Amino acid sequence: MGNADELFYSEPLHIVRGEDVWLYDAEGKKYLDVYNNVAHVGHSNPHVVEAITRQAKALNTSTRYLHENIVDLAEKITELMPGELEVCYFVCSGSEANDLALQIARAYTKKQGCLVSENAYHGNTTAVFQMSPDDCVPEKRQDWVQTLPSPKKYQQTEQIELNCLKDLSLAMDKFDEIGIGTAAVIFDSIFSSDGIFLPPPDYLKTIYGAVRQSGGLAIADEVQSGLGRIGSHMWGFSHDGVVPDIVTLGKPMGNGYPIAAVVTTRKIAQVFDQEYGYFNTFGGNPVACAAALAVLETMKTDHLMQNAETPGLYFHQELIELAEKYDLISEVRGKGLFLGVELIDPIGKEPATKKTAEIVNLLSKNGILVGITGPDSNVIKMRPPMTFNKRHVDRAVENLDEILSSLF
Amino acid sequence: MGNADELFYSEPLHIVRGEDVWLYDAEGKKYLDVYNNVAHVGHSNPHVVEAITRQAKALNTSTRYLHENIVDLAEKITELMPGELEVCYFVCSGSEANDLALQIARAYTKKQGCLVSENAYHGNTTAVFQMSPDDCVPEKRQDWVQTLPSPKKYQQTEQIELNCLKDLSLAMDKFDEIGIGTAAVIFDSIFSSDGIFLPPPDYLKTIYGAVRQSGGLAIADEVQSGLGRIGSHMWGFSHDGVVPDIVTLGKPMGNGYPIAAVVTTRKIAQVFDQEYGYFNTFGGNPVACAAALAVLETMKTDHLMQNAETPGLYFHQELIELAEKYDLISEVRGKGLFLGVELIDPIGKEPATKKTAEIVNLLSKNGILVGITGPDSNVIKMRPPMTFNKRHVDRAVENLDEILSSLF
Repeated sequence: MGNADELFYSEPLHIVRGEDVWLYDAEGKKYLDVYNNVAHVGHSNPHVVEAITRQAKALNTSTRYLHENIVDLAEKITELMPGELEVCYFVCSGSEANDLALQIARAYTKKQGCLVSENAYHGNTTAVFQMSPDDCVPEKRQDWVQTLPSPKKYQQTEQIELNCLKDLSLAMDKFDEIGIGTAAVIFDSIFSSDGIFLPPPDYLKTIYGAVRQSGGLAIADEVQSGLGRIGSHMWGFSHDGVVPDIVTLGKPMGNGYPIAAVVTTRKIAQVFDQEYGYFNTFGGNPVACAAALAVLETMKTDHLMQNAETPGLYFHQELIELAEKYDLISEVRGKGLFLGVELIDPIGKEPATKKTAEIVNLLSKNGILVGITGPDSNVIKMRPPMTFNKRHVDRAVENLDEILSSLF
Repeated sequence: MGNADELFYSEPLHIVRGEDVWLYDAEGKKYLDVYNNVAHVGHSNPHVVEAITRQAKALNTSTRYLHENIVDLAEKITELMPGELEVCYFVCSGSEANDLALQIARAYTKKQGCLVSENAYHGNTTAVFQMSPDDCVPEKRQDWVQTLPSPKKYQQTEQIELNCLKDLSLAMDKFDEIGIGTAAVIFDSIFSSDGIFLPPPDYLKTIYGAVRQSGGLAIADEVQSGLGRIGSHMWGFSHDGVVPDIVTLGKPMGNGYPIAAVVTTRKIAQVFDQEYGYFNTFGGNPVACAAALAVLETMKTDHLMQNAETPGLYFHQELIELAEKYDLISEVRGKGLFLGVELIDPIGKEPATKKTAEIVNLLSKNGILVGITGPDSNVIKMRPPMTFNKRHVDRAVENLDEILSSLF
């Protein structure tokens, strides 16, 4: 197999079974999953499995034929969207969604440039790789992509507007210099690969406003921050009270069944639809839609957005207590069930990259699965299934506490 | 929903159930499916549904953890490949596969240009749209794509080599003029959107050879022609006795479950893996692999490749008989269970585009589902599930005969 990307953990895990927030390896060892957002409503959720099975038994074909599932799903998703975001395109992956969002933005604006945050990750197609500085190093970057500083820069600033507008205009000027203009700005609303940041107040509002004034569109990548993950809101962008022109959804939509979506306004969709064609063989197929409908239903009946808020807040507070106990933890960031624990060496004030890897590997040995993110790989990424509860929080935090106390 | 692409048939169908080669609409009307290759081993194949259900109940997570399904599948696929094609990357769709194939070819060759046939379709990402003149009109085409004539041009030629090498070198010269060189040539091995052509003898051999001499790679898009579809061979390219550098698989792999793959050599994969990273959240997940394994198993136990050959040949012969009866049919092309019936107005010698649409819509009303392809939309596309048999052929041909005789 292609070995371009790595397995997790220094001792890779052979996972054979999943149930709710638990994963089991081939030896029967049990792991608390504090990482995999794809299993949004819990691993092997029986309601989702049943929906997939029932529909796969009946029919799985393309959207060249009418089917109620895709209509139901489009209605349910657009009902959850603010403003005029009422047209859906269904695709297979977040990469396909972000790639299509770029195509739509370019078709609508007749411009080419795309602004991204400095360590963004939006996927892996030829175009979206360019929009992902987390993977695409500057030497490989094409001139239709410019980066904006991570929100970290503005965290401590009084004059956010002034500062970020200056950075923005520098970036947009570069597009104008080469005559391509700004088609769009795209942000993951929780800036996951930048190190997990809720944008500072009015940050999105300010950027969206200025980009629109230059004729560009605002794209919100909700692949990670969406579907209730942050607890207080269904979508990450809502936290800053903005309404994007295009929203992309992915990973958790089908609880692992490959489905993703692009949502936009009628006005924008009409321009794209007139000038281009878009058909996706698997996108919006009846089984994919059945899975996504079951996820939305489960979220509603089990109050999972509210659940992300309460145990999420408790998780946050418990981690802040750990931060007070250990100098190594410089900051706890994020919201709901999407939290980041940044580790900075208290003496040298350098990112504690090695220690982060060490801790994450020890946690895995203790049966607690978390990830690593941020440009310096020094942020522990915690983003469990939405069914995570207070007892799970305790187990994760106690383990982290134990490891930190044994190490330092 | 985005209305960029159309529903099939002037009276769109509301299909609610599928079984083997049959589709049923909401009123219970039964249709013989002579079109959907995605349902490779038959609609709602119980063996595939069972494999999906069993694995979805147990576990569906990403390839960051070890899992036997992806290893099994990679082994089974590479066993079916000739030469040194022994490394697999798993993705979600044919578009993602062809996009990744382009990325791999560019990383390996350090060149950028891509040659495609003049009415090719390879998918819908930003990059692959460019490689799809069937959708991407010349005014929208970027200079890293050049087209080669469809094999039609060389069908009647004695000196294929001489002619196609001339066309090829003209196209490659354009890449050299702008200093980007030729990274790859990519062909759908049955030239479906060009109108369904088996390449004339030695055509692929000649093109592959010359492209390689210029430092480029040969990519075979087997999304449509692969997995035994042409009956005599597992892969379309094998019909011309060539071995590509990169092969892409898609649509039929998971019988509708979104899975696709890129297969290449160790030497090429190593260069890509060292210089780039590639991770695909849903690609190669245990459920997708279970579906694909069940498809390969069913093909073997039910001898479906052989089945494509025998009823395919019978289908071909029956269609040729119709061609002798009706002047409107200018040619019957293709192989196995991938056949094209070209309609040319016998008087004006113009492509019978309107009549093709009329016939296809009448067939649909009669309960026979076929498609349309070719640059002039005058080729009836027949590409049924691989379980299609002689009785199904009779039913399709009798209906077509009836419609042709009533019309003309």
